[in-house]
This record gives sequence, structure tokens and C-alpha cells, in this order.
Amino acid sequence: MRAVIYDRPFQVSVGNVPDPEIKHPNDAIVKITSSCICGSDLHMYEGRTAAEPGIVFGHENMGIIQEVGGAVDSLSVGDRVVMPFNVACGFCGNCERGFTAFCTTVNPGFAGGAYGYVAMGPWVGGQAEYLQVPYADFNCLPLPQGTEHEADFALLADIFPTGYHGAELANVCPGESVAVFGAGPVGLMAAYSCVIRGAATVYSIDHVQERLNAANSIGAIPINFDDGNPVDQINDLQGGLVDKAIDAVGYQAAAQGSSASGGEQDEVPNIVLNQLIDVVRPTGALGIPGLYVPTDPGGVDEGARRGSLSINFGRLFEKGLRLGTGQCNVKRYNAYLRDLIIAGKANPGFVVSHQVSLEDAPDAYNKFDKRIDGYTKVILNP
Amino acid sequence: MRAVIYDRPFQVSVGNVPDPEIKHPNDAIVKITSSCICGSDLHMYEGRTAAEPGIVFGHENMGIIQEVGGAVDSLSVGDRVVMPFNVACGFCGNCERGFTAFCTTVNPGFAGGAYGYVAMGPWVGGQAEYLQVPYADFNCLPLPQGTEHEADFALLADIFPTGYHGAELANVCPGESVAVFGAGPVGLMAAYSCVIRGAATVYSIDHVQERLNAANSIGAIPINFDDGNPVDQINDLQGGLVDKAIDAVGYQAAAQGSSASGGEQDEVPNIVLNQLIDVVRPTGALGIPGLYVPTDPGGVDEGARRGSLSINFGRLFEKGLRLGTGQCNVKRYNAYLRDLIIAGKANPGFVVSHQVSLEDAPDAYNKFDKRIDGYTKVILNP
Amino acid sequence: MRAVIYDRPFQVSVGNVPDPEIKHPNDAIVKITSSCICGSDLHMYEGRTAAEPGIVFGHENMGIIQEVGGAVDSLSVGDRVVMPFNVACGFCGNCERGFTAFCTTVNPGFAGGAYGYVAMGPWVGGQAEYLQVPYADFNCLPLPQGTEHEADFALLADIFPTGYHGAELANVCPGESVAVFGAGPVGLMAAYSCVIRGAATVYSIDHVQERLNAANSIGAIPINFDDGNPVDQINDLQGGLVDKAIDAVGYQAAAQGSSASGGEQDEVPNIVLNQLIDVVRPTGALGIPGLYVPTDPGGVDEGARRGSLSINFGRLFEKGLRLGTGQCNVKRYNAYLRDLIIAGKANPGFVVSHQVSLEDAPDAYNKFDKRIDGYTKVILNP
Amino acid sequence: MRAVIYDRPFQVSVGNVPDPEIKHPNDAIVKITSSCICGSDLHMYEGRTAAEPGIVFGHENMGIIQEVGGAVDSLSVGDRVVMPFNVACGFCGNCERGFTAFCTTVNPGFAGGAYGYVAMGPWVGGQAEYLQVPYADFNCLPLPQGTEHEADFALLADIFPTGYHGAELANVCPGESVAVFGAGPVGLMAAYSCVIRGAATVYSIDHVQERLNAANSIGAIPINFDDGNPVDQINDLQGGLVDKAIDAVGYQAAAQGSSASGGEQDEVPNIVLNQLIDVVRPTGALGIPGLYVPTDPGGVDEGARRGSLSINFGRLFEKGLRLGTGQCNVKRYNAYLRDLIIAGKANPGFVVSHQVSLEDAPDAYNKFDKRIDGYTKVILNP
Repeated sequence: MRAVIYDRPFQVSVGNVPDPEIKHPNDAIVKITSSCICGSDLHMYEGRTAAEPGIVFGHENMGIIQEVGGAVDSLSVGDRVVMPFNVACGFCGNCERGFTAFCTTVNPGFAGGAYGYVAMGPWVGGQAEYLQVPYADFNCLPLPQGTEHEADFALLADIFPTGYHGAELANVCPGESVAVFGAGPVGLMAAYSCVIRGAATVYSIDHVQERLNAANSIGAIPINFDDGNPVDQINDLQGGLVDKAIDAVGYQAAAQGSSASGGEQDEVPNIVLNQLIDVVRPTGALGIPGLYVPTDPGGVDEGARRGSLSINFGRLFEKGLRLGTGQCNVKRYNAYLRDLIIAGKANPGFVVSHQVSLEDAPDAYNKFDKRIDGYTKVILNP
Repeated sequence: MRAVIYDRPFQVSVGNVPDPEIKHPNDAIVKITSSCICGSDLHMYEGRTAAEPGIVFGHENMGIIQEVGGAVDSLSVGDRVVMPFNVACGFCGNCERGFTAFCTTVNPGFAGGAYGYVAMGPWVGGQAEYLQVPYADFNCLPLPQGTEHEADFALLADIFPTGYHGAELANVCPGESVAVFGAGPVGLMAAYSCVIRGAATVYSIDHVQERLNAANSIGAIPINFDDGNPVDQINDLQGGLVDKAIDAVGYQAAAQGSSASGGEQDEVPNIVLNQLIDVVRPTGALGIPGLYVPTDPGGVDEGARRGSLSINFGRLFEKGLRLGTGQCNVKRYNAYLRDLIIAGKANPGFVVSHQVSLEDAPDAYNKFDKRIDGYTKVILNP
Repeated sequence: MRAVIYDRPFQVSVGNVPDPEIKHPNDAIVKITSSCICGSDLHMYEGRTAAEPGIVFGHENMGIIQEVGGAVDSLSVGDRVVMPFNVACGFCGNCERGFTAFCTTVNPGFAGGAYGYVAMGPWVGGQAEYLQVPYADFNCLPLPQGTEHEADFALLADIFPTGYHGAELANVCPGESVAVFGAGPVGLMAAYSCVIRGAATVYSIDHVQERLNAANSIGAIPINFDDGNPVDQINDLQGGLVDKAIDAVGYQAAAQGSSASGGEQDEVPNIVLNQLIDVVRPTGALGIPGLYVPTDPGGVDEGARRGSLSINFGRLFEKGLRLGTGQCNVKRYNAYLRDLIIAGKANPGFVVSHQVSLEDAPDAYNKFDKRIDGYTKVILNP
Repeated sequence: MRAVIYDRPFQVSVGNVPDPEIKHPNDAIVKITSSCICGSDLHMYEGRTAAEPGIVFGHENMGIIQEVGGAVDSLSVGDRVVMPFNVACGFCGNCERGFTAFCTTVNPGFAGGAYGYVAMGPWVGGQAEYLQVPYADFNCLPLPQGTEHEADFALLADIFPTGYHGAELANVCPGESVAVFGAGPVGLMAAYSCVIRGAATVYSIDHVQERLNAANSIGAIPINFDDGNPVDQINDLQGGLVDKAIDAVGYQAAAQGSSASGGEQDEVPNIVLNQLIDVVRPTGALGIPGLYVPTDPGGVDEGARRGSLSINFGRLFEKGLRLGTGQCNVKRYNAYLRDLIIAGKANPGFVVSHQVSLEDAPDAYNKFDKRIDGYTKVILNP
């Protein structure tokens, strides 16, 4: 089958790889209809990870059941499904408590697995024609038959739940004020989730005008951090601090005034965390779905390279803040978010900038990485 | 001062009563700008309670601080405030845990007090020019100065939080389906609260067309129970049962097909409770802000007269349902709901049908009780 | 293999039935080492259900993995395991949210399945030499190898988690006072769970002296309801009402002063529910793991026969009570309770009165049903 | 009256100060029967804060109501009471949501106030004969009359709730394993609270043998960090990581092998935080009641002096940990913990090493600061 293959830094190609097969009675094979390129794919694309050439990318996958193993009970050939980016078994101690992002079965020696991602287990990615899905009864979310809402549903694999996870980690409640740092796809999904949950006021902080426009379009108040300290800006507008804050940026945070184009900006890995602490009022909470890593060979200093950051912990304590971190347990949210899409109450597809064929993946990676031609969120349609 | 006085069943008048005074250092006197007539005022108006002639009605009160006692710290003359219908001390065991509807201080021998209501303590009602507010620092919610959102804010005294309480008791979450029984003012506020909290689908059940229209206007799906069993209707539309249900009707529930005009309908006090049990799927939850009483001299049978109802408890258990009941702890929600109003995210005032002068109260009571001339929610403006 | 077979009301025998086999790749066969007789088995034994002759009883099962199907990943032959009485798939909407007692897969047309129980699906009971366990990765809780704590661990299949479930449904918290109605095996486990959770004061209500003695031995205060209204007794001792209450009795509740021996007492199916409402203070909560059924051919009146009970709902509402019901989702608790046993912090086996061979089951059923010779909780050891 | 007065670093004296008076109608004057010396008093005693000479120490206060202001409703002269160390108003936004440690009324410009502590507002300390208690209805917890449990109850002012707060911040649940760093008075109370809440296994980490012995006596497993990395020790004993961890040490953490005597040890302010991150398994949670400050003139480096610490945030994120921090909202817990004491289920007084007269305070401070003669927790009895 055709698949997106990582060749070397800043280079992917579309080539032939073996078709996936049923290897375990609980497997299913899914014919991919949509597979998104994720900002975290760019970490591998830019050569900033230990990903080896030959890996097939793609952890945001959706499609049609092509074949099921002999133990699969709830799925039939032809069913339309979307898979969480987390691969999970459904029966380990973490899965049974709902922490499917920390499955201890699917990636031995580590808590958590994913498709097509370095160090996340043996699972081949879905930027391809077909995908092997293990524990298929557990990992496939059924969707309404047909082609409606294809882009909306595809985002259920990762970024819509991941944004929502930020709101959940911060326990965003109706009537509250929230500052969401980052208005990339995940940040927009976090801000959108805050709106859905009934927040009174949502601030969206970024320095890319198109993103800020998108945030504005869903009812968030855009804050451009190149215009000054975002904490001060929010304080002025809000007349005080906010109840909650979400970090949808992570460790590759850009300094104020640095270039907005990829790869060249000045990284300040702790800047967003410390701004979260500053912007939230005493007794507040922080949701941190943005990625922080324990080892980063490209880190800006020795601490960053081993994932150690200078945090204003004294201030955090003085305010009595709580915080939650980590990858999203997609299954905790995806059925609810699907039902919001079906009911017409959520249309997350507004963040999708491009839908292109699988064969166009190399061009799409190139443009998305450079953030040119408006590439912000790309869906590959094999 | 002028005040609405209960004379006898189906008769109130506006007369002179003594001005309220500061009796305790924690008191404040509020000059009333808005005081709503509540459906529960009609229980007294219709003579269905032990209310004695002479009582001044009014527990949904809003106004301007006129005077403060010597111990009041956070309020100044001229502040615009709205008071929860619950009178609460702020320091008893229940208040300190947030159960302000069950204050054990303000109504000795009972858990819970209110203004202008029989058996709810010595607190004179606010359908008058002035109101004595005890424990004023605790009981006054500050509002933005001016006159904006007057009707929206007035509803913070009772029905907006009470409707929201229904959603909270049922733990309505984003993406869920909910059936809200009753589309009177509280039922509409409950349905509206479910929408605000991100429910995917909200059904609103009533048999008054104007109410169903109002429900439809806020995004709920209207169900007329005179057209057939509402559980069956919802099941057909939903393709199954719902996640949660709210009872915003209470013990004076009307039988299917009974007249929609007040006072003459056939009461079936357990009908809504059993429909809640039927309409919710296994593992679901019920929120019951609708009033049930331990003694009802006008009850339809001996059980009803002592508050005992036949409940399908076997079915409730088989489904593993949870339920929550009771009067709303207004202070738990009112600041959040106020902030939604200020931010333009909530406009509960859509339920207000009439705003009239205090002197017009007798006519308003008469029409509201008869549900004529479109009287559904009346605010008195002294 | 040998198994306990239901012959007719008040008669079981031990006979030969076919050995269970791997029928699905996710199955395991468990060689039973302990299988308990449950009070709910007596409902069938007494002929009070639609159970047909020939059914093999036993839903509280523990043993050693004998064989695994081709899709089973986490279990090996020789592993020591205990199975929740609920049969559950692990991937349906209810299972994935932790409501494994309401699995929609294993008992088509109903939410919830169990081994060896009428109307709970096709799953053969474990009062036998071997047991077929479906979805074995999900349904087997691993235990330390060996024979230690055999009786304690066997209770993880049902009554220890079920008692704990009562405390969880009532949200019993450290420092609270709790009234636990019923001191049979489940009631004792509920009282024990309250003690483990740090309750300040636990009352245990029954009228069998041996049970009350057992309650006393774990730190609960025994209340004999034959000595007078238990609500009044608790009120006197506590100097007020309690924070929480648990119903571990269910619909076959005995009237005050009725005979304590099985089968002859006067049933008052709503008595415990209404006492719960009376004994709990305003703002409190009720946990109801005790069984209520939607149809009971042997019910004392027409309402009881269709599961409809007269509940003091007006009082419940006035107090603003919450309540939770339903069968226990054993998997939500069993790993935690196992770890308490391993750590020596919990020894639930104190409720076991007899451990006998499988062949002695008919005698054990007879004596347990009659509550003679001290039969309160029996474990069969094949 | 006589009171403990701060003179200069390492010097307090007992001298005469003006008697407190009712200054506000909500005040009460309490005749102190017990006032504890707290480890945080030593921060001032050692000159490590901006505390000015003349300040009266004492925030852990208990006694008898001597006089009440005209607005006080629930207290009478002669009542026995204990006061949370937090001074709180009961009506500000934070108090009404239960965050009484972050009251915005009692210490203008800051969220949170306390008695006798630098920068915590104008409230004179209680290591004296009498104490002025503002908002007395809210701040006085009633106790049974008499003298029973005096030491146990005195600990309700601060360290028992503060230790419990650690367990609550980490959401310690029955059956879990917990590592509690620090076995000083707060650490012991945290470990004790974990035991009360039903934890299966509690590790207590310190390097003072007497403290480790005390931990052992309440059922915790002592870990001496001078014997090697405590994370490795726990991992070996537990056979894996723990579910939860509590930091009862704070920023003045000692390096492994440093002297156990006060004031001379090598401080490593981030060592405990990073050990918490290491010792907890993925999906776990951290409770951090141990003090961290935003400015520390005596900090070991430039970062520490402004409260900035190097945290292994990449690891924290990878594990998906949650954490909670901040001073204890004593009122959230104190009534429940009092009831555990009354019921005989908790006896926190075991941590009290000395009860001496007020006049002996200088000697007690000296010995407690040097940790000599077994001074670990001192109560002054005026």
C-alpha cells in the first residue's frame, strides 16, 4: 500500500509498504479515509527526535472497517470509525481507570502508546491506505455511516479531545474566565472547548494573526503577545486575574517578538508555564496539555535538554494553584464530543486549512512546517 | 412603605407596612428596584399553605443598598445588589459547606430560610419598597452599577440558579442528552442551563404551547405531553433513552390531557418522577429541583397529603440511577451566572413576560395565577 | 465436572455437567478454588425468581487459570485470579466509563450480566470445578500466588466491593457519621468499608444478635430494631441525625419484631428506604446497594409486585438529599480492596462462617437459607 | 497581658502587651488555654523573614470565649473553641467557595491572613493570655466543654488539617500507596491522615530517627533518606512506584547526609519536588502542603531567592501527573477531624512532645529550634 515514509530531517516521501494484516484476533484493519498531520509529527519531521528513517507517520486516523480478527465483537466490515491516537488495551490498570494515554500493555516498558510515532510502540502510522488497529473493540469509536462531518470527526482522533483535555485538567466551569496560551490547532480546540463548557470569558494568546483571527471567530478574545506581556494585557482587559489557564504551547514556546515562522524563533521553554502562574488568581488551576519532554537534544540549555525548567514555584504555592498535565486520554471524551458534532453543537473542522491527497503529503509537510500558504491543519485523504 | 400583602386566598393588596430597620449590626436595608413574582408565591396565593393574612410576599429581590449596619464590611450605600431567595448566615455547618439553602441559623428549628415565605423564618418579603437583609455581607451579590441587565440580574435571586441547580444535581456534562420536564420559568432556566453547560441534546416537556415555543427558541427540542407519553416521544426522536433528566415540575404535576390553565388540572403528583425514571438510561442521573412537600393538605390522596408517593423504585435500582433533590443553594452559582450575564453569554431575561409597577401587583397576581394575557414571569418595579 | 445444580425450590444437588470450553478467543477457563454462596442465590433457591431447573449457581468465583483463548494477553496458566460477579466486555459505552455492572454486550437486551444467575445472561455459574470467563483480560483480577488470604480474596468477587459501593454511593467521608441498615454479609462489608474510609461513627442496624455482635467487633455501634425504631435509637445516641445512610437490606426488609428466621418474617419493602430518609440530616446522602426489583411475584401487595414503593419523597426533597442505587461495578474497587488485604489493612474474611466442600453444597444451602447452625456466609471449595 | 514577643533573630521574650479588645461587632476575645509553636514560627525566629521586633507570635490557638461583640450570634462566653490559623471573613469570593486560606478581606492586597505572622495581616498572635478573633462566628470551631483532648484539639488549628490537606491535594484514596516526604509534625499528620483515609501503604521519609519511629508507630513504613535515595528505597520495598506522594518538607529541604540539626544543614530547595515526581507512577498525583515562598533572602542561589526552582517538568508531563499546592483551608476539614477525635478514631496529640507554661516560651523556642531535648511539637499553656 501507499504510505507517508520518513526519509530524513525535512523530508518525507510517499512510497509502498506492506499491507497491514490481522496479527491478533482482536485486531481490525481500517481503510483510511482521513489521516491528519499533527504538529507533533513535525517534531519527528524536523529531526528533533530519535525517529529512524522508514517510519510511517500518522496517529490521527479515521476510516472504514476493512477486516476484523476472530475475537472482535462490536465491529463489522463497512463500519465508519475514528481511532484515538493513543493505542490502548482496555484492561490494564491504567486503562480500566480511564487513563488510556498511559496504557501499560501496548508499549512494553512505557506507559502509553500511539500509531506512527517514535518511542510509542510498534504501531505503524495511518498516513497510508490501511491501518492495523489492535484491541479494535476498544480503540474504534463508531461514527454515523456516510461521509458527513468527515473533517469534524477526523479531529476526534487527537486535537479536539486534546484541547478539551486542557479544559478538563483546569476544570473549566461555566461562568469562569480562562486564558488559553497558544492558538495553533490544539489551542483553538482548547479555547473552543472552554466556550462549549460555558466559560464566561476566554482569552486566546498567540502571535500569529491568522490564528488570533480564528480564535476571535469562535468567541475568544485574541491577545497578541508580541504587543506586550500577555499577563498584563489580560489583567487590563479583565480587570484582574483569570480563574483558569491552559498551556497549549509546550516546551517549544517562542519568546515575545521572535519570528512566527517555524524553526527559527527564539525558544524559551518555561515562558508559558510561568505566565500561566502569573495570570491565574489565587485558588485557580492550570491545565497543561502542551507537550513537555524529559529529554530534548535540541534544548536551549543544559536544563532544557534534560527536561528541567525553572518554575516560579514559590508563586505557584503562594497562590495555592493546582495543575494537571499529560497526554489526553482520548477515549474519556471522544464519544461525548462526537455527539456534539452530530447534534450540530460543535464544528471543530473550522481549524482545518487543507485537505489533500495522500500523494501530496511531502508538499503538505513542507508547507505546514514552514507555516506558508496558510497551512495550519492538513488532512490527508488516501 | 408600600408592600404586597396577602389578604386571603386569591387576593393580595398593596398597602402600607412599617419601613424595615437595621436590627442587627450585620443587616443592610436595600431599596428594591426589582422583585419577581415566583410560581411558588402562587402556592400561598391560592391558599394551599398555612400562610397567614398580612404576610408580605417576595423572595426574588434586587436593589440598591440604602443603609448598612455597623458590622457590615463589604457593602456601601449605593451598591447594586441581588439577594438569593435563601436567607443564610454563612457560618453554620451547612452554610460553611456551601449548603446555604439549609442554613440552621436563620429559621430556628428548620434547615433553611427565605424572605416572605410561610414557614421559612421571620424575614419580610421584598415585593415592597425596602427590604431588611440579614448577614448582608454574605447575602448580597454585588452587581455592576447602573441599570443594565436589570431583568437578567433579577433572575439571579432564584430561578436562574434554581434551573441551573437542576442541571448540577443531574451532573449534566458536555455532549450529553437531557430531558427537562416542565417549561415554566424554572424549567426554561434548567433547559437553558443545560445548553450553557454544553449538552448535545435537550428535550423540554410541557403542554403549554407558548412555553414550548420559548424552549425551542433557546435550542431545546419541545415535547408536548398532551400528544402522547413524553418518554415514548423522546425515545423515538433520540433513538434511545437520554443520559440525564430534570424535574422542574414538582408535586403539582398535571396529567396528560388535563387543562393547562391553573388550578383546574388533574394532579398526578408522582407522574413526572416515574417518567424521569423511565426516560433515563441505565447509569444515568436525575436532578430534581421541582418542589415536593412533606405535607400537602390539598393532596389528591392520603399518601400525597403526607408527601408519600408511589415510586418505581425497582426500576430506578435496576438502572443504577442516582438522583439529587432540594432547594437551590443560590450562592453556589450566582456569581458565576452573573458573570455569564455580564459577558453576554447568558440572557435569562427572555423568560420575563411583564414588568409592572408595585401598585399593579394584585392584577399581576391574578393574571399570572390564571396564566392569562401571557403572564408567565412578572417583575415588580417599585 | 461436578457443579451445584438448581432442582426446584428449596432443593439443589451436586451433579455432573459438561466441562466448560474456550468458546471465544478472549475466554479463559478457571479451575475454581473458592466459590461463595450469596444471599441473592437464595432468591433463586427459594423459588422467588424465574430461574429454571438445571441452572448452575455461583457468581462469586475465584481460582487458578487452567487454559486461555488465543486472544488473551495478560493471563497465564497457573495465575491466581478472582472474578467480579459482573460479566463485562470492557469496551461498551458503559464499561468504558466504569459502569461494568451495566455492560450492554454480555446480556443482549439488558444492561448487566453475571455468572449463574437468572436473567443475567448465558454465563454458567462457578459453584463447580471449572468456570468459563469471557473477556478474561478484563474480568480476571490477578492475585498473589499461593493460598494466603483465600477467604478474604474470594469476597472480592462481590460482597466486599458491594458493601464498599454502598459507602461510595453515599460518598462517606472521613469524620462523618453513618447508619448502615442490615448487618448481613453485605451490610457488614458496608459498615467495614465505612470504618476503612475513616467514618467517625458507624451504626449497624439489624435484629439478629450474631450479626450485631459482628458489627460491634469491627467498631460499629449495633442497633437492634426489634428494640424500637432505629431512627429514634440513633438520634438518641448521636444527639441528632447522621450524615449518611446505607441500605444493605433491600426489598425483603423485615418489619420490627418479625421473626429473624428466613422466609417467615413480615416483609415491609419500603421500611428501610423511609428510615434512611428519616435518619439522615438535611444535605445528607443515601447509598442503596440493597436490591430492589422491578417485578416481584411474591411481593406483599400490588405495588410491591411491580416494584413500586411508597416513598416519603416530600421529606427527601425538603432535606435536599441525594441518593445512589444499583449493582456494584466491582472492577471500580476490587484492585484497591485487594491491595488493602495484601497490606494487612483489611480482613473481610471475618464474615465467613463456613468453608465446605462442593459436595456439601445442598446441606449448606439448606442451613444458610434457614440461618441455622450459624450459617451466615459459606464458601464452597471444590 | 503576657505574650511571646519577637525581639531579634533567635530571641523571643515573654512580656506585657495591651489586652486585646472588641474592635468590631463580629469580634470575640478568647482566653487562650493552648497555643502551639509551629515550625513556621521558626522561619521568623531565625530571622529569615521580614518580621519586625515586637510582633506577638502564635497562630495555633485554642481557648475559652471571654467576650463577644454585638454581632456575634453563635458563641457564648465560656464556650470552648479552636481557631484555624487562617483568619477569614466568610463572605469574600474565596471564602464562600471554601478557600478560607485565601480570604481577600482580612489582609488587604493579599489573598490570605493569619494570626501573629509577618505579612499575614494585622492580627496579633495567640501565644499570649488572650486573643482577638475577628468574624468570630466564622472563625471559632466549637469544642466539647471541659478539658478532655486538649492537645488533640489544639492541633486542629493548623497541623492536623494541614497534614490532612496534603492527603486531600493528592486525593489519597482507600487502597492506595503513598510516599510522605518529611516526618516533622506536619509530615506525621499527613501520614496519619493517609492512614485514616484508608491508604494501603504509607511511606514516611525523613532522616531523624525519632520522627521515623513516630511514623512507624502509626503504621507508616519509615524510610531514612540518609541511607540512600528514598525513591530507590521505596521502589525496592513497593516493587514499583507509588500512587501518590506528599511534600511536607518545603523549600528548606535538606540534602542527603546533611546534619539533621536545625540551621546547619545543606539546603536543596527542589530536591523533594523532584523526588515526588520520580516516586509517583504515571497518572498519579502530588499533594504539596510544604511551604514554598516567592522570595527567600536566605535562598541558596539566585533562583531560590526569588522562588524559582528547577523542576523536572518533562518527566512530570510524561507521567501525566497532577499536583495541588498551597496553605490549608482549615475550615474545610476541622469539624470532621474534630469529630474523629471525639469519636476516639484520631489521636493526633501523639506528636506533641512538650506542654509548657507561656513563661517558658523562650526556652522552648530555643530548644525546638535546635531540635534538642526531644522538642518536636510544643504547646504553650498560658
